[in-house]
Amino acid sequence: MQDYPIYLAGTFIRTSEKLEVNNPYTQRVFATTYVAGKLEIEQAIIQGKAAEKVMRDMPIYKRYEILMQIAQGLQTDKLRLAQVLAQESGKPMRYALGELDRAIQTFIIAAEECKRIPGEYFSIDWTPSGHGKEGLVKYVPVGLIAGISPFNFPLNLAVHKIAPAIASGNPIILKPARSTPLSVLELAKIIDQTDLPKGAISLFPTDREAGNQLVTDERIKKLTFTGSPEVGWKMKKEAGNKKITLELGGNAGVIVSQDTDIAKAVQKCLVGSFAYSGQVCIHVQRIYVQEKVFDNFIELFKQGTDQLKFGDPLQQETDISAMIDETNAIRVENWVNDAVSDGALVLSGGKRKGTYYEPTIITQTKPMMNVCALEVFGPVVTVEKYSDFKDAVHQINQSQYGLQAGVFTNAVDEINYAFNELEVGGVIHNDVPTFRVDHMPYGGVKNSGYGREGVKYAMMEMMEPRLLVKEK
Amino acid sequence: MQDYPIYLAGTFIRTSEKLEVNNPYTQRVFATTYVAGKLEIEQAIIQGKAAEKVMRDMPIYKRYEILMQIAQGLQTDKLRLAQVLAQESGKPMRYALGELDRAIQTFIIAAEECKRIPGEYFSIDWTPSGHGKEGLVKYVPVGLIAGISPFNFPLNLAVHKIAPAIASGNPIILKPARSTPLSVLELAKIIDQTDLPKGAISLFPTDREAGNQLVTDERIKKLTFTGSPEVGWKMKKEAGNKKITLELGGNAGVIVSQDTDIAKAVQKCLVGSFAYSGQVCIHVQRIYVQEKVFDNFIELFKQGTDQLKFGDPLQQETDISAMIDETNAIRVENWVNDAVSDGALVLSGGKRKGTYYEPTIITQTKPMMNVCALEVFGPVVTVEKYSDFKDAVHQINQSQYGLQAGVFTNAVDEINYAFNELEVGGVIHNDVPTFRVDHMPYGGVKNSGYGREGVKYAMMEMMEPRLLVKEK
Amino acid sequence: MQDYPIYLAGTFIRTSEKLEVNNPYTQRVFATTYVAGKLEIEQAIIQGKAAEKVMRDMPIYKRYEILMQIAQGLQTDKLRLAQVLAQESGKPMRYALGELDRAIQTFIIAAEECKRIPGEYFSIDWTPSGHGKEGLVKYVPVGLIAGISPFNFPLNLAVHKIAPAIASGNPIILKPARSTPLSVLELAKIIDQTDLPKGAISLFPTDREAGNQLVTDERIKKLTFTGSPEVGWKMKKEAGNKKITLELGGNAGVIVSQDTDIAKAVQKCLVGSFAYSGQVCIHVQRIYVQEKVFDNFIELFKQGTDQLKFGDPLQQETDISAMIDETNAIRVENWVNDAVSDGALVLSGGKRKGTYYEPTIITQTKPMMNVCALEVFGPVVTVEKYSDFKDAVHQINQSQYGLQAGVFTNAVDEINYAFNELEVGGVIHNDVPTFRVDHMPYGGVKNSGYGREGVKYAMMEMMEPRLLVKEK
Amino acid sequence: MQDYPIYLAGTFIRTSEKLEVNNPYTQRVFATTYVAGKLEIEQAIIQGKAAEKVMRDMPIYKRYEILMQIAQGLQTDKLRLAQVLAQESGKPMRYALGELDRAIQTFIIAAEECKRIPGEYFSIDWTPSGHGKEGLVKYVPVGLIAGISPFNFPLNLAVHKIAPAIASGNPIILKPARSTPLSVLELAKIIDQTDLPKGAISLFPTDREAGNQLVTDERIKKLTFTGSPEVGWKMKKEAGNKKITLELGGNAGVIVSQDTDIAKAVQKCLVGSFAYSGQVCIHVQRIYVQEKVFDNFIELFKQGTDQLKFGDPLQQETDISAMIDETNAIRVENWVNDAVSDGALVLSGGKRKGTYYEPTIITQTKPMMNVCALEVFGPVVTVEKYSDFKDAVHQINQSQYGLQAGVFTNAVDEINYAFNELEVGGVIHNDVPTFRVDHMPYGGVKNSGYGREGVKYAMMEMMEPRLLVKEK
Repeated sequence: MQDYPIYLAGTFIRTSEKLEVNNPYTQRVFATTYVAGKLEIEQAIIQGKAAEKVMRDMPIYKRYEILMQIAQGLQTDKLRLAQVLAQESGKPMRYALGELDRAIQTFIIAAEECKRIPGEYFSIDWTPSGHGKEGLVKYVPVGLIAGISPFNFPLNLAVHKIAPAIASGNPIILKPARSTPLSVLELAKIIDQTDLPKGAISLFPTDREAGNQLVTDERIKKLTFTGSPEVGWKMKKEAGNKKITLELGGNAGVIVSQDTDIAKAVQKCLVGSFAYSGQVCIHVQRIYVQEKVFDNFIELFKQGTDQLKFGDPLQQETDISAMIDETNAIRVENWVNDAVSDGALVLSGGKRKGTYYEPTIITQTKPMMNVCALEVFGPVVTVEKYSDFKDAVHQINQSQYGLQAGVFTNAVDEINYAFNELEVGGVIHNDVPTFRVDHMPYGGVKNSGYGREGVKYAMMEMMEPRLLVKEK
Repeated sequence: MQDYPIYLAGTFIRTSEKLEVNNPYTQRVFATTYVAGKLEIEQAIIQGKAAEKVMRDMPIYKRYEILMQIAQGLQTDKLRLAQVLAQESGKPMRYALGELDRAIQTFIIAAEECKRIPGEYFSIDWTPSGHGKEGLVKYVPVGLIAGISPFNFPLNLAVHKIAPAIASGNPIILKPARSTPLSVLELAKIIDQTDLPKGAISLFPTDREAGNQLVTDERIKKLTFTGSPEVGWKMKKEAGNKKITLELGGNAGVIVSQDTDIAKAVQKCLVGSFAYSGQVCIHVQRIYVQEKVFDNFIELFKQGTDQLKFGDPLQQETDISAMIDETNAIRVENWVNDAVSDGALVLSGGKRKGTYYEPTIITQTKPMMNVCALEVFGPVVTVEKYSDFKDAVHQINQSQYGLQAGVFTNAVDEINYAFNELEVGGVIHNDVPTFRVDHMPYGGVKNSGYGREGVKYAMMEMMEPRLLVKEK
Repeated sequence: MQDYPIYLAGTFIRTSEKLEVNNPYTQRVFATTYVAGKLEIEQAIIQGKAAEKVMRDMPIYKRYEILMQIAQGLQTDKLRLAQVLAQESGKPMRYALGELDRAIQTFIIAAEECKRIPGEYFSIDWTPSGHGKEGLVKYVPVGLIAGISPFNFPLNLAVHKIAPAIASGNPIILKPARSTPLSVLELAKIIDQTDLPKGAISLFPTDREAGNQLVTDERIKKLTFTGSPEVGWKMKKEAGNKKITLELGGNAGVIVSQDTDIAKAVQKCLVGSFAYSGQVCIHVQRIYVQEKVFDNFIELFKQGTDQLKFGDPLQQETDISAMIDETNAIRVENWVNDAVSDGALVLSGGKRKGTYYEPTIITQTKPMMNVCALEVFGPVVTVEKYSDFKDAVHQINQSQYGLQAGVFTNAVDEINYAFNELEVGGVIHNDVPTFRVDHMPYGGVKNSGYGREGVKYAMMEMMEPRLLVKEK
Repeated sequence: MQDYPIYLAGTFIRTSEKLEVNNPYTQRVFATTYVAGKLEIEQAIIQGKAAEKVMRDMPIYKRYEILMQIAQGLQTDKLRLAQVLAQESGKPMRYALGELDRAIQTFIIAAEECKRIPGEYFSIDWTPSGHGKEGLVKYVPVGLIAGISPFNFPLNLAVHKIAPAIASGNPIILKPARSTPLSVLELAKIIDQTDLPKGAISLFPTDREAGNQLVTDERIKKLTFTGSPEVGWKMKKEAGNKKITLELGGNAGVIVSQDTDIAKAVQKCLVGSFAYSGQVCIHVQRIYVQEKVFDNFIELFKQGTDQLKFGDPLQQETDISAMIDETNAIRVENWVNDAVSDGALVLSGGKRKGTYYEPTIITQTKPMMNVCALEVFGPVVTVEKYSDFKDAVHQINQSQYGLQAGVFTNAVDEINYAFNELEVGGVIHNDVPTFRVDHMPYGGVKNSGYGREGVKYAMMEMMEPRLLVKEK
């Protein structure tokens, strides 16, 4: 059984607290690693602070080279790394390989973006008091960053913090989820081969109590968290003077208008609803279908759902596998059962076997049911009909969340209305809200988040403008 | 009868060659002015060159103040100026007042844009050879500019050269059309009240031969011309080393899809087709209507056309008045008659009375007829039906011109296709190609032009980037 | 004695709690107004929320018109308004008139910037997963804003919240300092004359307890505060999920290198140190002079200081007047006396008469003295000599604050070093840190602030990006 | 002896007209290739036009992949390709390898920039006439491009046309210099391995007469030429309606102020003056040294020059080798001799041996001498003293050219003055005008050029804006 040391400021170490990593599908421990305690966190902070200046002053070609080397390292070992990721997370290989591709992209984009950190150069003499002067703005790194990433994209959501940190000239301490620390520790081995200064990066899981220092310590200048809304908003209060970015969850909605390609909409919704058992922040949770095409949609959608193949994440043909743990599977089971008790109708799925929960379609729900109102983070989707497009938009907005939304329509006035009125970070036209490419601005409004990721946008939140007013 | 001296480098003068200005509607001379000859042009150039440095070094707040004073001056005297404009051009007051409003806007926008002349500030160290360096780019004025403007918007198309020239720190010599020099000379009086350095601007008509020096003289660094394609492209060849912008004509097309508000489309097309007797670069010349709505469109369009009121441009209720001169009215008459001889059908209008040509709708045309293939620059529009949207786009592209096009549709795939495939400078959704606001980029592709106007865009073509590679 | 009703959501009202406004120079009440309580704040919030949609949907030309009307209103009544401002704040007329000019500018800039709210339009197909798609980003208003502004620029620092709020399409509740609410209430009268929707703006002082609801209430989406660091950072913790901007104070430093125009540096430092008795966030508090020019600088600086004329703020020739209140004057007195006890030397000033504290120069200080380490917010400046430029930069950085810094030098390597190393929001070359024009990005790092103002920058912090991924 | 077929629209072919390629150092033919005639040019145009649509519609990820594959191909075979380049051009290996590195960079930058082709998204409703509308601008490829590149950077100056053409979605026909066609034909082999559509690129030398069709043919939409001013400006006149970019030559100047590191300035000037025998557009031709440091500069500069090692370009230790041909060497010889006859003094070099001309320093020149006033394009540099900085700037401006200039100084006021007043495309601080990195904007003013290269800037000149005014 493989044992992974953790990565503390450029050194691989083992601590006194061992951590067993479980395969959610087999329910067996398949690797071990270690938890960082107070001492290691203190070390990571001290060495991170010490690396601030060298990171800030690192020339662009050096940053570029390091980031591209990491991308290359991931590329070279892609299959094996995807297998590690599939095992720790229960994510089917198809999606695990996709995540590797995206992590590679994220590093490449960061390499490109560090060349293009924006500067501003503008006139100051708009009034006589600015006579003879002009202005420059450059963006300088904020300093030591703490990143906290979740289990569902164990690699790429960590990379969305690490790559921008390097590109923007900042050291970072990254804490992955305790259940899925391995792909990040594999990444650490690749990073260790580069010229990145020792101290510029630490990667390790922690226990929650010790880990909270990453939130509260004032030597850390920026906290970037991806995870649940409850934890995120609590962190905002505890974060002191530091800057924060919160990428939280949602209950993303889709509208399927009559004037669209239903078969395509169904195909997209199948992936959006059930990929990685719906354990995705922008998982399709609520679908609103125009009444004229509702029956057609339901029929095709059920067909598609019934054909999804359950199995071992390491098997290529597997569409859906175990959820991350039984606790979550039971939670989802309860929510669905509660909905049914309250009048909802299960059209497909609806059963649990251990850590596996079937891909499940529900209809005749009420907005206040948990399966609608909270983030289900499981393979469950509700489908309801609407008659007026504006009403469907209103339904989606009736939520504490606002991450992304999908709209299938060919009507200009509908897509315009949706873009004007949907209270979300992103509207995806003719696709599901689950759509994301790594360079686009990504993040939520309302309770879904604070700030934006997407390499360039994440970098901007890791820097501060510095103005020079100069004579011209 | 009012006599207007011309404006030579900050001085109002009279030359030996007097010019009578005709009212196209009354066919009577109503004012006089003067033509600049070789001597005056030489003086304008010499003094323009002498003003280059002071214009370049003028602080932003000074440029802003001058431009806003001019806008204010036009505002204060708007009604009288519109009357001058209406008389010299035959443009009905409603449109003359609109032109005044737009000229005021153009100066205001220029005032705002001079504050925002872009600078660039970027990293140079993408490779080790750039180590320790960074880059700045500022935009510096090119130097003396020659502007040549047409009769159809005697004020605002001159202002689209004058205002950006001032805003970008360049002196300019502006030659209006010989038939419509008065509103520009009124503008000269307002400019003369400001602190604009003497020499920074000259405004006068010339005879064509002497005027050609504005095209060929190498001391002039930039030529910006609005007028006919033939003249424009010839100038490009003769312009020597100088930069050029050409705003030429077209035979703009409109598509009316079935999935749109026909009454609104008709209303817009009436203005686009017949405002100022179609003497507009982006006048609606060719309309393609989806076959399902063709009859409906035609019926409403004819109704609307028949209600247009001919009369004195000075009368408020006049919709349409005389063309600029009888030569042009006869030309339009001949083109329509030729089309009819070749099989086309006149649905409305089709007759000439002196300088007045009726608003005219033709159908059953062939693409090679003059009324389709050339720029009609008169109150004539062709309407044809189509069945496939892509075919309508193809029809519009079957032209040597490409200025703007209008597309009325509510289908996303249609407007996307149009924006991807229409070979024009601008696609106007749910409106006519005649749509223009003064800050948008404006200009044609193919034989319709070279470069762009629209205040900010015109300014960019009047400046050159200058790079500083500096140590950081 | 004039009585000012407060402005609650478009209505001028009086509450049960009267507030007397004092003239710091005469120490006499010269006007009265009212304090908003819980009830009025609740009303302002409810009506502010109700105005969110109309503000968001307001077309640009309407926003522009309103903002320009306000600028015009201030211009028309400038002298009288400056007198109100001078009386409530004790600010000499010269500076009060300057503040009026800047407030006018701030509205004009906001009018211009609302036209230029940035949008993004970019390719999505960087990988095959984005095939056929492209992206748009527009910035949408966050919703109801709370602004809290300080006494020292009673008008313009409020305007730096109000004008961007209107320009970005947000309603705002603005709470001025209790000591200086009148110029803002004068502004309310001007705003009331425009078409700004009722409810879009409320302006009133509150008591601290009730006012804290503006910080904590989750219906408010953004808090923008200008004031003291202690209060600001506490607000960050209490602000819940809302966005925040904090413009706090500092102990701004200036470096005077040997290679500069000493007389000019002295002239600038006199204004930077003593204008409005140093009650300015970017007041010059610490001057570091190269040893070769130290004696020369000190001599001229003392001369200049001794010539400053104390008097009534309403008198044109007054350079310096009373501090805002005696409490603050006594605090400053104590700090200076403490410094002297600890070895510092007073070179000029150092005495208090009631609310007046003399312009005071100290030397031979130690970094931990209050006059160095804390924000003095009074007419006190320390001057010390340095031998190595890098050491002077280091001295300035030895501070918990980082707002702006001034550097007088003609050496390229020195100004480059300063811009690279000074831990501040802005470096001002050949001028004092007190330099500010209203369109430049303004704000501090370290304990001096969070986020940026300066019209465009403030607007960006009042909007959120919304992405559309569309088919192309 | 290797025989290189030419590359016609995706096919390697041989024509009836063979072309022998000479090694300027050995003066022996070492390879053969072919000249394209009228027929081949017509074919290239026809197939280039046919490729316009597929190039325009090619997704970004495909363009990126192709460009990166080419960069990789050059990287893999770098040494051999540098040897080909060294042999055809006489460029010493050190510089030939440098050119390979830069060509690789140019392709990488183009790959990155195609992802970032700018779009604009802005408000239209600045006045009521734009109510409810907003604007988009995308940049669309102009269509078939003709590129003509010179002998001195046979690879990278061709790549500066090819890479941006691909990145911006345009087909291109590239004509290298007849004396140095081989490195480009090697590049063709690498391009042929990619998925670039056949027809999208043709690469071949032509005879001048047939080649002129690339200038005049109206099916070609853009001409981009790098070469001599005489040829370039003539092309502008003959280019018809097409867009043009001209990268021409100059007589670049350097200022060495007293306040700088003389040893470093000398080191930079040695490379700038004599690398590749001065056959570089931005070769250092005129050096102005402040009188206080003139003697010191001259002494070190002579020492450095005398140590340059002449030899075979293929030898690693060679600093300087043969000029491109004897004609040019004789021309340079004559110019120097003429200068001497007219009173100039040769401080170093001044002799010719066949195609080799010694690195030559001259002083006591007059501005009208050919070695000063014309582009020497050989290893000759003049050095003169100045007393006042402004005078040195004036000297550099006394030229028909304005490409780049170098300024060595540590005085802020000097570098500011230089950036404000030098009439050039680029000012290089503390380095020679010869400095260029491939992403910076590059190009001349006055007779030195028209438009800009530098990947992003070249791409912008290969596209046209297309506006969409849409409902929002």
